[in-house]
Amino acid sequence: MGRTSDARQKILDAARSLMEERGYVALGVAEICKAAGVPKGSFYYFFDSKETLALAVVDEHWTAQRRDWQRLLAGDAPPLRRLRRLFEETEAGQRAGRQECGTVAGCLFGNLSLELSNRTETVRERLQEIFDAQVDLVAAVVAEAQVLGDVTVTDAREAARAVVAQLEGQVMFAKLYNNTRRLSPLWDNCRALLGAAGSP
Amino acid sequence: MGRTSDARQKILDAARSLMEERGYVALGVAEICKAAGVPKGSFYYFFDSKETLALAVVDEHWTAQRRDWQRLLAGDAPPLRRLRRLFEETEAGQRAGRQECGTVAGCLFGNLSLELSNRTETVRERLQEIFDAQVDLVAAVVAEAQVLGDVTVTDAREAARAVVAQLEGQVMFAKLYNNTRRLSPLWDNCRALLGAAGSP
Repeated sequence: MGRTSDARQKILDAARSLMEERGYVALGVAEICKAAGVPKGSFYYFFDSKETLALAVVDEHWTAQRRDWQRLLAGDAPPLRRLRRLFEETEAGQRAGRQECGTVAGCLFGNLSLELSNRTETVRERLQEIFDAQVDLVAAVVAEAQVLGDVTVTDAREAARAVVAQLEGQVMFAKLYNNTRRLSPLWDNCRALLGAAGSP
Repeated sequence: MGRTSDARQKILDAARSLMEERGYVALGVAEICKAAGVPKGSFYYFFDSKETLALAVVDEHWTAQRRDWQRLLAGDAPPLRRLRRLFEETEAGQRAGRQECGTVAGCLFGNLSLELSNRTETVRERLQEIFDAQVDLVAAVVAEAQVLGDVTVTDAREAARAVVAQLEGQVMFAKLYNNTRRLSPLWDNCRALLGAAGSP
């Protein structure tokens, strides 16, 4: 058990880092197995296809990211301060990735949305669920800020969609320009989108 | 002359529509030539490589889009009304594409930014130039609006970057959800990012 689950995890780790680096379409199963250091037979023991692997990578990444988002957005701090933490941590995460690999990896979900959404409905649906969940998490904090009178927006969910879109757009530019400073205006942009007055 | 330039244009047209549909990496030269209805030899007569073709597709697409943006953003109408036209036309363009092909193609430059920017520096630089030029075009209109006191933002270029990022983020979601209604809030989001009061 120890060894097999280890091989599955090695494949997932290698696939995620290769997908972040070069996308999904360009990857071959042989290459993933080589990077993972496992025989090719192992791959088909754990995964039916490259698509099944992509879904597993997406699910694992979202499980970790959702935990991070929930942690950052929870707590007793004022809602906008918690939202601000989310952007600061996103920038810090991209910066750490750039220091490690030399390139800004961007958002795995955004990358796959543009690369795959018109190619596989299964991946498209999973990514839609993930972005819906991101919007829900942000909308809950915006709704708290509404109650406190910290923001002027009336539709918390629409505002949360704009905030997540802004995040994806700026992360795209951080990747294109290979520069994480592109993410620094995120908080000011978010405040503007929410109609928030002060800087919490 | 007529026939050769015609073959080049057929290759460009086929490549652009295939790239919009399925991205760049998944495409093969044989497939492009088949879709274009030209012999494979023609391809290498006009293009050294798939990368050269990608650059030609990007350049041709930007030449047309820049002309559209310049037309929409010029004129005697108030600056914010001109900016609004840009979003309305973007939405209309994506809607027309969806009616024709059944799927929202999204932004070719955004798609390639996420698919290719960490793979080829030549394409990355070209896409950077294009987004810089988009930001310049928007920033010029924001600067006009500043003079008129129509917006409260102080840094026109930073504000224009946020607007273009919002556009790319929302276009990403229109593609992922295959739904152009995702683009309808663009103008309200843009007004919020610029600190614009009324609706021109």
